[in-house]
Amino acid sequence: MALDVSVCDELLSTTRAVRKRLDLSRDVPREVINECLELAVQAPTGSNSQGWRWIVVQDAEKRRALADLYKRDAEPYLRSAEEQSQDGTQTSRVFSSALYLMEHLHEVPVHVIPCLQGRPREGTPVTALGGFYASIYPAVWSFQLALRSRGLGSCLTTLHLNHEKEAAELLGIPDDVIQVALLPVAYTLGTDFKPAARPPVANITHWDTW
Amino acid sequence: MALDVSVCDELLSTTRAVRKRLDLSRDVPREVINECLELAVQAPTGSNSQGWRWIVVQDAEKRRALADLYKRDAEPYLRSAEEQSQDGTQTSRVFSSALYLMEHLHEVPVHVIPCLQGRPREGTPVTALGGFYASIYPAVWSFQLALRSRGLGSCLTTLHLNHEKEAAELLGIPDDVIQVALLPVAYTLGTDFKPAARPPVANITHWDTW
Repeated sequence: MALDVSVCDELLSTTRAVRKRLDLSRDVPREVINECLELAVQAPTGSNSQGWRWIVVQDAEKRRALADLYKRDAEPYLRSAEEQSQDGTQTSRVFSSALYLMEHLHEVPVHVIPCLQGRPREGTPVTALGGFYASIYPAVWSFQLALRSRGLGSCLTTLHLNHEKEAAELLGIPDDVIQVALLPVAYTLGTDFKPAARPPVANITHWDTW
Repeated sequence: MALDVSVCDELLSTTRAVRKRLDLSRDVPREVINECLELAVQAPTGSNSQGWRWIVVQDAEKRRALADLYKRDAEPYLRSAEEQSQDGTQTSRVFSSALYLMEHLHEVPVHVIPCLQGRPREGTPVTALGGFYASIYPAVWSFQLALRSRGLGSCLTTLHLNHEKEAAELLGIPDDVIQVALLPVAYTLGTDFKPAARPPVANITHWDTW
């Protein structure tokens, strides 16, 4: 099958961070999560390591506990960021939307925590950690794109990671497995998402030299 | 427009790491790179930071110099990894293919180096760096997906990053901007890529608890 470029472009340009338009009242079947994970693990990994693990949390008490952990850093950060950002800008809308998500996180029917095996030691050079994380975030994004194609939405959040250890205790995650995100997952309210406004790529592209 | 799930699934499951099937003799128009970058920057970033910069290298001498830098770590690593991997396994084919790419890297018509502004200090906690890199690898992967839809291929490599400083000098990249990958980009020889064989996702998915 030839890939229809217009469909691919639509997918890549309308998979937004969904926070306010998550349907909190509609259940998400396990089968849909499994289908999206099957697509996620088609993403490449360094040296074909495939060290990913996926924790899918449906249990209401655990989602409440994760939401509490999330809020601990998210609340002061997002409130301060919202106050400092200019009213009406894209970024101020992001912070306001992120506060909404924070308040409702426990109500989102599924939390997905992607993990990577082989926790790097603290003090690993920053560029080496790029090589490490390059083996998981493409898969995370593929998962989100697959959700979008099926009428679901999510948001790549990392604000619970300062309290990763407590989340690991809650979920029984071994020490050598590192959490890399928390994705709230739900059907979206409507599917008519538009591309985000972005500055021209010419401003951020350098040909042959900076 | 409704998203055609079968097209989306095909995109996500057949965008492979392309190394041997890059067409080294066909030029890549700038317009195609620009289109794919426009799609790449639709990806989400933490706090809407959009700190990405993209270096696109077409200059033959610079590609030669980048290939030399890449080879410095890639050659000993890949030769040793190839020797130690079992003949005929998927991973041994990856290493053999990676060695092929290494030998031909200077011939690949375009090198794209995605960068992120705001270099983290060394010693930043490992999980905090997850939050940092989560703002660039989704965009990198979107770029690769967009290439695929247009008949081009690439491969997310990070083996030059130990010599990032020399690459920065070569390309004039400022100190506070960190390189996160080197993507060789070319049209592919044919477009009939198949999904990779993967273990069942049930093996790597945990419901509610590890």
